[in-house]
Amino acid sequence: MSTQPSSNGGSPPTRFAVALFPGFQALDVFGPLDILNLLSKRTPLSLHVLAATLDPVPTGTPITGHTTSQSIVPTRTFADGFDDIDVLLVPGGFGTRIPENVAPVVEFIRAAYPKLRFLLTVCTGSAVAAQSGVLDGRRATSNKRAWAWATAQGPKVTWVRHARWVTDGNVWTSSGISAGIDMMYAFVAAQFGEAVAQDVANASEYVRNTDPDVDPFAGDVENGVTK
Amino acid sequence: MSTQPSSNGGSPPTRFAVALFPGFQALDVFGPLDILNLLSKRTPLSLHVLAATLDPVPTGTPITGHTTSQSIVPTRTFADGFDDIDVLLVPGGFGTRIPENVAPVVEFIRAAYPKLRFLLTVCTGSAVAAQSGVLDGRRATSNKRAWAWATAQGPKVTWVRHARWVTDGNVWTSSGISAGIDMMYAFVAAQFGEAVAQDVANASEYVRNTDPDVDPFAGDVENGVTK
Repeated sequence: MSTQPSSNGGSPPTRFAVALFPGFQALDVFGPLDILNLLSKRTPLSLHVLAATLDPVPTGTPITGHTTSQSIVPTRTFADGFDDIDVLLVPGGFGTRIPENVAPVVEFIRAAYPKLRFLLTVCTGSAVAAQSGVLDGRRATSNKRAWAWATAQGPKVTWVRHARWVTDGNVWTSSGISAGIDMMYAFVAAQFGEAVAQDVANASEYVRNTDPDVDPFAGDVENGVTK
Repeated sequence: MSTQPSSNGGSPPTRFAVALFPGFQALDVFGPLDILNLLSKRTPLSLHVLAATLDPVPTGTPITGHTTSQSIVPTRTFADGFDDIDVLLVPGGFGTRIPENVAPVVEFIRAAYPKLRFLLTVCTGSAVAAQSGVLDGRRATSNKRAWAWATAQGPKVTWVRHARWVTDGNVWTSSGISAGIDMMYAFVAAQFGEAVAQDVANASEYVRNTDPDVDPFAGDVENGVTK
């Protein structure tokens, strides 16, 4: 499959990037990134904060109805390329429902995907990745309250409802918001070893959910009807 | 006690602020703030992102040894006052070990405290609050790996080692990093109702730790020796 990330083997990936857009969910980003920040003290990592422009990117947008917002400063733009990125993290958030907000992310994923070693998405970030087509034929999951909308973004994706996170080859997708934290700990465990992952979790005083198949939130929807 | 926050009663607090400094821990901030962001869609809230200046505030610092960093844009400075703040959130992080980084926060807490309805700290944020003197005579907790240093910042504080979070009057302090998420859910439950808190947690797909006295990480240190 020519569009598959190029390598799952070799040394652990150290070059990370996160793709922001207006209306991204803060915890989708900073749950996983806080783990990388802690990890970077023992294992040097690089991280690019990507966006369409270098303007600060807000978590809130005028049309999503949230009255509080925080803005993050990108370190470079999507136009600056992806040759030095091993792992791309794509968050979700209410901004995913605004096509013009995520269009640059969709395009970037489509272009970068063949060169990535890993693609990680959190929450409705999998819907954004699905729009790029790179999840076609793969197993993936997403936010449970946004399930109907998210899954409609990828009719050729094998959506797995009951999952904390799903791994298919080099693509990792998590359920809603907080699930991204557990997915990132599992990713760190797979790449850097379980002892490293648990030591970071202990430093963060985080009680991990370590079984990807245990999903207390999948039951929010019955018979395809999203509550 | 004249320095006690002025009111615990009445309507739920809606005016929040977070005090940033270079080297703050990202999840200390965005764990709790993501909850407020979600809550703000159903209950309008205000949130000021405070810092010493309006320059973006980085999670990393040159001297803490982390190689990845994200920068957040303040919305106003400490000098702009606190009359419109009900709840002040103070994060921790490696930057707390750099006195010049947190000195403006210590001063701001000391000045604002008598006017606040609530003071919330996460992780070593309680050490910063302790330096301001406002925790004297109160029960509080902090990060378990930083316990020796943190508790030394407040010799007149009654430090509670075995706790996910501690409430004393209108002061809430949490253990390390991730514990701030559980504390904020408990705070939202106390102020807006348990149903609201659990609904936000379900939206975030977060498995809460709801008992403040259950602390799986307190055992990392035995006989006062920090591992």
